[in-house]
Amino acid sequence: MGGDHGVSVTLPACRAFLDAHPQAELLLVGRTEALAPAAAWPRCTLVAASEVVAMDDSIEVALRRKRDSSLRVAITQVKPVEGVAAAHACVSAGNTGALMAVARYVLKTLEGIDRPAIATVMPNQLDGHTTVLDLGANVDCSAEHLLQFAVMGSALVAAVEGKPNPSVGLLNIGEEAIKGSETIKRAGELLRDAAAGGHVNFIGNVEGNDIFTGKADIVVCDGFVGNVALKTAEGLASMLSSFIRQEFTRNWYSKLAALIALPVLNHFKKRVDHRRYNGAALLGLRGLVFKSHGSADAFAFEQALNRAYDAARNRLLDRVHDRILETLQAMPVEPQPQTGPVAQAA
Amino acid sequence: MGGDHGVSVTLPACRAFLDAHPQAELLLVGRTEALAPAAAWPRCTLVAASEVVAMDDSIEVALRRKRDSSLRVAITQVKPVEGVAAAHACVSAGNTGALMAVARYVLKTLEGIDRPAIATVMPNQLDGHTTVLDLGANVDCSAEHLLQFAVMGSALVAAVEGKPNPSVGLLNIGEEAIKGSETIKRAGELLRDAAAGGHVNFIGNVEGNDIFTGKADIVVCDGFVGNVALKTAEGLASMLSSFIRQEFTRNWYSKLAALIALPVLNHFKKRVDHRRYNGAALLGLRGLVFKSHGSADAFAFEQALNRAYDAARNRLLDRVHDRILETLQAMPVEPQPQTGPVAQAA
Repeated sequence: MGGDHGVSVTLPACRAFLDAHPQAELLLVGRTEALAPAAAWPRCTLVAASEVVAMDDSIEVALRRKRDSSLRVAITQVKPVEGVAAAHACVSAGNTGALMAVARYVLKTLEGIDRPAIATVMPNQLDGHTTVLDLGANVDCSAEHLLQFAVMGSALVAAVEGKPNPSVGLLNIGEEAIKGSETIKRAGELLRDAAAGGHVNFIGNVEGNDIFTGKADIVVCDGFVGNVALKTAEGLASMLSSFIRQEFTRNWYSKLAALIALPVLNHFKKRVDHRRYNGAALLGLRGLVFKSHGSADAFAFEQALNRAYDAARNRLLDRVHDRILETLQAMPVEPQPQTGPVAQAA
Repeated sequence: MGGDHGVSVTLPACRAFLDAHPQAELLLVGRTEALAPAAAWPRCTLVAASEVVAMDDSIEVALRRKRDSSLRVAITQVKPVEGVAAAHACVSAGNTGALMAVARYVLKTLEGIDRPAIATVMPNQLDGHTTVLDLGANVDCSAEHLLQFAVMGSALVAAVEGKPNPSVGLLNIGEEAIKGSETIKRAGELLRDAAAGGHVNFIGNVEGNDIFTGKADIVVCDGFVGNVALKTAEGLASMLSSFIRQEFTRNWYSKLAALIALPVLNHFKKRVDHRRYNGAALLGLRGLVFKSHGSADAFAFEQALNRAYDAARNRLLDRVHDRILETLQAMPVEPQPQTGPVAQAA
């Protein structure tokens, strides 16, 4: 039901996903009348939810008032009851803050995880992609949180991309270990310890540009910094694409040039198409939850479904769990105080 | 002497600057033999300095050991002796951390300023530009520091761009006043108070993408976040430009298309040319100091000279000083402990 376009985007994406994955099954959660077009689809079950969390609803409203929201009922599908859950993964294009808060409330965090994190992928210069976390769930992070993000991100990339030992960089304002705030320096120490124990493949500090150079498979940062980096990149990409459009429509010559350059420009556009990277993982919960961009179209939402499907098939949940426990047992860190729902991303 | 290319870039830039500004005078600071080509230039005086701060020298080395460095001697030119300084502004392409630390040591901060900040401009979608500060000088900032940055940034834009009342946005992870860390929320309160008193034109929170939408003339953030945002933008721009180059050289058709589209692509390139925006201001010192990008070419370094020249002509120093005093008198904030040199940008 969620996102800027609701079922007009999610239903066609679900249909395409079912066609592409003959072994997949879908539970569609929402208002019965909205989901009616999917009633006769194969491998598809409708699950009724009478309410919808609006994109601008507060976390309070999502948590306490709309108890039969599609967002909450969908998350409940991945919560095990006597060891078995109705679904392996949940995908939503809804309100990020509400999704994180409700997921945290319904599913709880994994043992050893203080705070869940949001991880997304960005394209890089090596024609691969870089996984960045956290992206806005956690505004103030301790060094221990950053270590947990590194371990969770490593499990994600290992599971979804089949890289057994992905490299981790700590986002900082310089490569030298002496750079950054006290928290960042201490996180660097913890990560070096974890690397010495073989728990993460830590390559040291990276800078903002390294998200795109592909220097590290995973870039770890606090949610404030990650959110600003992601939004800055979105803003620049959007400005550049509008400038290119303006230049190629400026006069008759540039329009002709655009026509001739169209196949080249389309190839470029496809290569950097952010829709291909849609589907952020909420990591550290006792269930798989993926967040689609609210503005996603059907193609983009289908990518988020694919990402969730791959994660479930590759047992992401068990892997995060195992990897966190293994790291924590090897290098016990002080427990952090739980601070209630801290999801803040828009 | 500084930057990646030294005098091979700075000397041609200085020559072009002198030709373009018949009323300007230059003091060139550095090793006599390196500056020899400029010995006979009009309105140009050579000032000898026997040492050079290397790009990878520590702040310690720059501050304590190389006391006759070109960086230090250049900064000393803008320090008043009995009310008169040898130069109105100092421009360097050298080591940022060293420049900030030495400038702070030699010049001291203005009354009411706890920490100097680094401000740069980025192009925006409105074909104007957005001034962003801080960019790496201050890793951990209090709410009061962010208020001071807003006031200094306002004075800069008023002086250099002739906008008497430029708008200020606080970089955050959402537009609502309840978003962000405690420091950011408190900074929002201080900025609203300052706006109510008519001291800054605060328009509220902005997000990373707003650096490029042009929603605010000035975007205020701490140095860690600002540095990550700037480097992320640089990294994305560099990836996109290399992808465009690859696409247009992929095969004979794309090469032909490139030839035809060349005037359009050049126009686009010129519009987003980061060299045009070179020259970051070190604000809050008792003297004008500008920092050129280390990798600047002669065109870019000349822009940094122009920026310093405009700032000096428009009495930036007095304006920052007056504006800070006016704001502080109206809304006294608790003094912050001085924390020694904190310049950390690379």
